[in-house]
Amino acid sequence: MLDDKNPTRTDLSELGEFALIDHLTRDFPILNKSTVVGIGDDAAVLDFGDAQTLITTDLLIEGVHFNLSYTPLKHLGYKAVMVNLSDIYAMNAIATQITVSLAVSNRFPLEALEELYEGIALACKIYGVDLVGGDTTSSNKGLLLSITAIGAAKKDKIVMRSGAKPNDLLVVTGDLGGAYMGLQVLERENEVFKVNPQNQPDLASYTYLVERQLKPEARKDIIELLEKLEVQPTSMIDISDGLSSEILHLCQNSDVGCNLYEDKIPLDPTVISACEEFRLDSTLVALSGGEDYELLFTIDQKEFLKIKGNPNLTVLGHITDKNEGTHLISRNNSKIPLTAQGWNAFT
Amino acid sequence: MLDDKNPTRTDLSELGEFALIDHLTRDFPILNKSTVVGIGDDAAVLDFGDAQTLITTDLLIEGVHFNLSYTPLKHLGYKAVMVNLSDIYAMNAIATQITVSLAVSNRFPLEALEELYEGIALACKIYGVDLVGGDTTSSNKGLLLSITAIGAAKKDKIVMRSGAKPNDLLVVTGDLGGAYMGLQVLERENEVFKVNPQNQPDLASYTYLVERQLKPEARKDIIELLEKLEVQPTSMIDISDGLSSEILHLCQNSDVGCNLYEDKIPLDPTVISACEEFRLDSTLVALSGGEDYELLFTIDQKEFLKIKGNPNLTVLGHITDKNEGTHLISRNNSKIPLTAQGWNAFT
Repeated sequence: MLDDKNPTRTDLSELGEFALIDHLTRDFPILNKSTVVGIGDDAAVLDFGDAQTLITTDLLIEGVHFNLSYTPLKHLGYKAVMVNLSDIYAMNAIATQITVSLAVSNRFPLEALEELYEGIALACKIYGVDLVGGDTTSSNKGLLLSITAIGAAKKDKIVMRSGAKPNDLLVVTGDLGGAYMGLQVLERENEVFKVNPQNQPDLASYTYLVERQLKPEARKDIIELLEKLEVQPTSMIDISDGLSSEILHLCQNSDVGCNLYEDKIPLDPTVISACEEFRLDSTLVALSGGEDYELLFTIDQKEFLKIKGNPNLTVLGHITDKNEGTHLISRNNSKIPLTAQGWNAFT
Repeated sequence: MLDDKNPTRTDLSELGEFALIDHLTRDFPILNKSTVVGIGDDAAVLDFGDAQTLITTDLLIEGVHFNLSYTPLKHLGYKAVMVNLSDIYAMNAIATQITVSLAVSNRFPLEALEELYEGIALACKIYGVDLVGGDTTSSNKGLLLSITAIGAAKKDKIVMRSGAKPNDLLVVTGDLGGAYMGLQVLERENEVFKVNPQNQPDLASYTYLVERQLKPEARKDIIELLEKLEVQPTSMIDISDGLSSEILHLCQNSDVGCNLYEDKIPLDPTVISACEEFRLDSTLVALSGGEDYELLFTIDQKEFLKIKGNPNLTVLGHITDKNEGTHLISRNNSKIPLTAQGWNAFT
């Protein structure tokens, strides 16, 4: 429209808390039979019959976990759901419900929250998850999101971090380092923008990386694939903090060691070329980058034929006795101890 | 100890995220058979057999929901759990697990978080609830807590907000307005303290009010009492925002009206005297004060004899047809429409 330079802006204080929740959550249909009561009572009611119930939660804070100068709110809503669903899938379970709590300062108009909820609604629709509750309040600074996801699985299907055994194969889904390199690209453009706001960034050659950062997908498809292939992992974890940190978690919880082969780490060609451009070591980026939301799991060697050649799955190495330690076997065949380079929230 | 003017202070950055979670959650024993896997994997695993599962969540933000200049951290932890358990009890269910997510700025040392978790642990112990997960991160300003509670109940025991019928009796537990008056006392002392930090406040005569504000108890005992009395409420809600707002929620969800009798509203003598001192109307305080975490429910008239004379329960009025509206019948017998004076987070 002509002259539409000030898009509609509705102040949150016009609505009040209850009307705001009603408004934001009206377009969420119920998708799961296990959702008995959704939003609108003191608590949601779920019924999993003879399945076991899983629960996980994550907190995302503006200025710590995301930067709104380059994160569209719709993407933020979508990603916040993915982060939580990924933890449910990492148990070999199916996510069924989420709750979304939100704190916003009054610099955000209603339309901003609508955008955020559009992303949440899209994630719920694609992943077949019901929004069943939450809390909405004001904050004195910025935006924060706290999401809790619920899931269900048959008892004998659930995979913990603690079941890896020596000689098991270490398998990862997809490719690594993309989300981290996407963040490097976005932060660089953001610096350029601060100096020259007229500059129009050309991100075309970084599309994959930027998407990995802004709109990651949780690997529900892998849980379905494993079911179809009749593969029951012995242990599993999702990659939120970087491959190295997650392998160490897995080995610690399973009381085992491992050998990880550098030349097996799956890297997208655009990650490799961006690493060259930014003068970063691509192995280090994959090991420490984080936010890829791929799944890392172990399987018994006799399951190998079932996954062999599958383009979604890469065998990275194998589990060893604990006293052999946790090592990266480099391309030139040296044995380097793995260190936790997981993102430390307090430094 | 002599010279102990600088109590031990451990910087959070010395620990890192994972060590911090381990450290804060090591003293939480598992109390419920339904907790299959607690903290330490991607998600907790719960098993409710043939019971239904309930979930609720609340977000508490420094400067919005609490003021640390007069809220001891241990009390804050305890209260944050109560706020959530109260929502589970308001469904006539028993709370079984919680997750606790936490964001803190680096002005908080480890010892502050230990105090907070002491309060959480005490609440878990007294109420028989397991801590099964959470997320810990840094914030750029202040402290915030996001708690999710899970509960269980037999399907035919669960009470929603929507079941009230005309002629049902409206019942409330405990007494009202205490938490709000406790807040008035604390805020007054805080103002005095700002002017004269040497002043030692004498809060002895306000003990009950201050406790209602800082250390409320969720009414698990009422759920057990209702079971023992064989009373099945037709609808129920907890009083977090004030009696008036909660009655309106109940009537709206049940599609009914109600008559509430002013002279029936239960007030503690210390609430009445504090209202006189602060020149506040005690009825208005009970209707709009909030944070009492009592339960409000409706029962069929034929259940009346079962609750008659119980010191925990007060009949406040009765449910009417929707077209009769929602009214307060004042002491001088005038009929005043109830308005939502529930706390509006955005004004």
